[in-house]
Amino acid sequence: MKALVYHGPGKKSLDERPMPTLIAPTDAIVRMTRTTICGTDLHILKGDVPSCEPGRVLGHEGVGVIEEVGAAVSTLKAGDRVLISCISSCGRCDYCRRAMYSHCTTGGWILGNRIDGTQAEYVRIPHAETSLYPIPAGADEEALVMLSDILPTGFECGVLNGKVQPGSTVAIVGAGPIGLAALLTAQLYSPAQIVMIDLDPNRLEVASRFGATACIDSGRVDPVDAVLALTGQIGVDCAIEAVGVPATFELCEALVAPGGVIANVGVHGVKADLHLDKLWDRNISITTRLVDTISTPMLLKTVSAGRIDPTRLITHRFQLEDMAGAYDTFSRAAETHALKVIIEVS
Amino acid sequence: MKALVYHGPGKKSLDERPMPTLIAPTDAIVRMTRTTICGTDLHILKGDVPSCEPGRVLGHEGVGVIEEVGAAVSTLKAGDRVLISCISSCGRCDYCRRAMYSHCTTGGWILGNRIDGTQAEYVRIPHAETSLYPIPAGADEEALVMLSDILPTGFECGVLNGKVQPGSTVAIVGAGPIGLAALLTAQLYSPAQIVMIDLDPNRLEVASRFGATACIDSGRVDPVDAVLALTGQIGVDCAIEAVGVPATFELCEALVAPGGVIANVGVHGVKADLHLDKLWDRNISITTRLVDTISTPMLLKTVSAGRIDPTRLITHRFQLEDMAGAYDTFSRAAETHALKVIIEVS
Repeated sequence: MKALVYHGPGKKSLDERPMPTLIAPTDAIVRMTRTTICGTDLHILKGDVPSCEPGRVLGHEGVGVIEEVGAAVSTLKAGDRVLISCISSCGRCDYCRRAMYSHCTTGGWILGNRIDGTQAEYVRIPHAETSLYPIPAGADEEALVMLSDILPTGFECGVLNGKVQPGSTVAIVGAGPIGLAALLTAQLYSPAQIVMIDLDPNRLEVASRFGATACIDSGRVDPVDAVLALTGQIGVDCAIEAVGVPATFELCEALVAPGGVIANVGVHGVKADLHLDKLWDRNISITTRLVDTISTPMLLKTVSAGRIDPTRLITHRFQLEDMAGAYDTFSRAAETHALKVIIEVS
Repeated sequence: MKALVYHGPGKKSLDERPMPTLIAPTDAIVRMTRTTICGTDLHILKGDVPSCEPGRVLGHEGVGVIEEVGAAVSTLKAGDRVLISCISSCGRCDYCRRAMYSHCTTGGWILGNRIDGTQAEYVRIPHAETSLYPIPAGADEEALVMLSDILPTGFECGVLNGKVQPGSTVAIVGAGPIGLAALLTAQLYSPAQIVMIDLDPNRLEVASRFGATACIDSGRVDPVDAVLALTGQIGVDCAIEAVGVPATFELCEALVAPGGVIANVGVHGVKADLHLDKLWDRNISITTRLVDTISTPMLLKTVSAGRIDPTRLITHRFQLEDMAGAYDTFSRAAETHALKVIIEVS
């Protein structure tokens, strides 16, 4: 089969690989129909993710059709169309019993990281019954690709952790795909304001169409002044960090109101300064989270009901044969205006 | 009347001052019977609290007897014995309506800071009906002095924010009065382990008597290794920071388990390093809080019922005339083994 293989920092190629086979009786083999590329895949290619070793098939998102299931799998069968969760979970360890699937002791984020992933014609999915979701009849497969990772990540790490509520004031720092996913899902809770902050006018224009109540180009105006002006000089109830660098996290520290939450979504490679001298008495919370995909069933229903249309995040389409083009377009997003790309596999 | 007056960094004296008088109809004048000294008073004397100007009577804790009430006060009357909350709250502003009394727009921590405080024979209490608590008949006044600030602070900022639950593993960094108050109140929730960490063997010995399940002298052993050994190499569900310096906050970052909480109680004067590179995917929360004293009524009942004995925190007693001795003993706690000192006023 064809698969996009990581060969060490800066190196990848579409290679011919052997078909995956069942290893544990709880596994399933899935024939991929659609996959995509995540910002995390670019982190791997930069060499920032040491757990991902050369030789690994990348990718942790997508939909497909079950080809084969292990002997212990009774609720899924060959021919079932399934959504693949970016988080594999056994459903039985202490973390899974607390619904903290991201920290499953034999799962978590392993696909396209510690085991071969979804940017391939076939993929082996461990713990199949608790890591795959049957696709409802009539559902739009491309929409559901957005439910493998990006929508639950924006929702759980940003909106749920950020305690977005009706009437809340929300600032989202970073209008990339994850920030936009937080923007789309924040609206489920009818906040009073959602202020998007970014340096890219194109992304801010997208954010405006997606429902942001205000957009701040932080290259042109001071975002702290702007947010304070929008919130009666108080700051926001919820500041969502969707970039992953110290400057944007520290911006959130300046934006959060007394009693508010900073919900970190970004993947950080270095420390940030925490200004406890200013924050110790502000009654704030800071949260971090790797998505647990606890919200996947809810999001499936919400998308099916037409309350969210995640296909709005899709800007480009490629065939598996042109993975090089897909990566090139996705990695030059500032020029190409790429948000999410769909890879058609079969 | 006699009052302990702040005269700028490093300077204080017991002065003769005019009696306070009612200013607003919601005020009360309280004749003090017992007060105490807080670590925050020492911060003021170091010049670390710019909102407290020279000429201020210090103190934000104590019990007394109402001398006079304003025309708008109907639920309190002269002669009532009252507990003074360190937080004054109007009960009507947006923050008070959210029970965030610490951020009351005309109150908060103002006593002994922005207005004259309780280390005096008399004190004016603004917003009397929502800032004073009638003392139950037969209650121990000295015990209740601990309910002005230290017990609700340890409980709300540490135990409640830290989500201590039955079976939790808890580490408290700092076995001073606030850390010990957190230790006493954490036991209301029957956690599985409470590990106290300090550099002072005397304070650790006190912590052991107060119910700590393990005590770690961080001058002798690596507290991270020790806590990991006590928790199956996972870390603690709740790390309570009760010191207020970067090193102890950063220690909490190393102690917290996936899914856990760092509950900051310490007053910080400088920033700390937040190791988001290690924490972004750990599903943790960090909380800060100035005590809201929402738990004061509950703690009054808990102390009255004998479930907590806060008099265990009292190590020394002084008369108001000897405030100099009281400050000297309290500020040299490492030598004097002082925890809380009681000042008998009348």
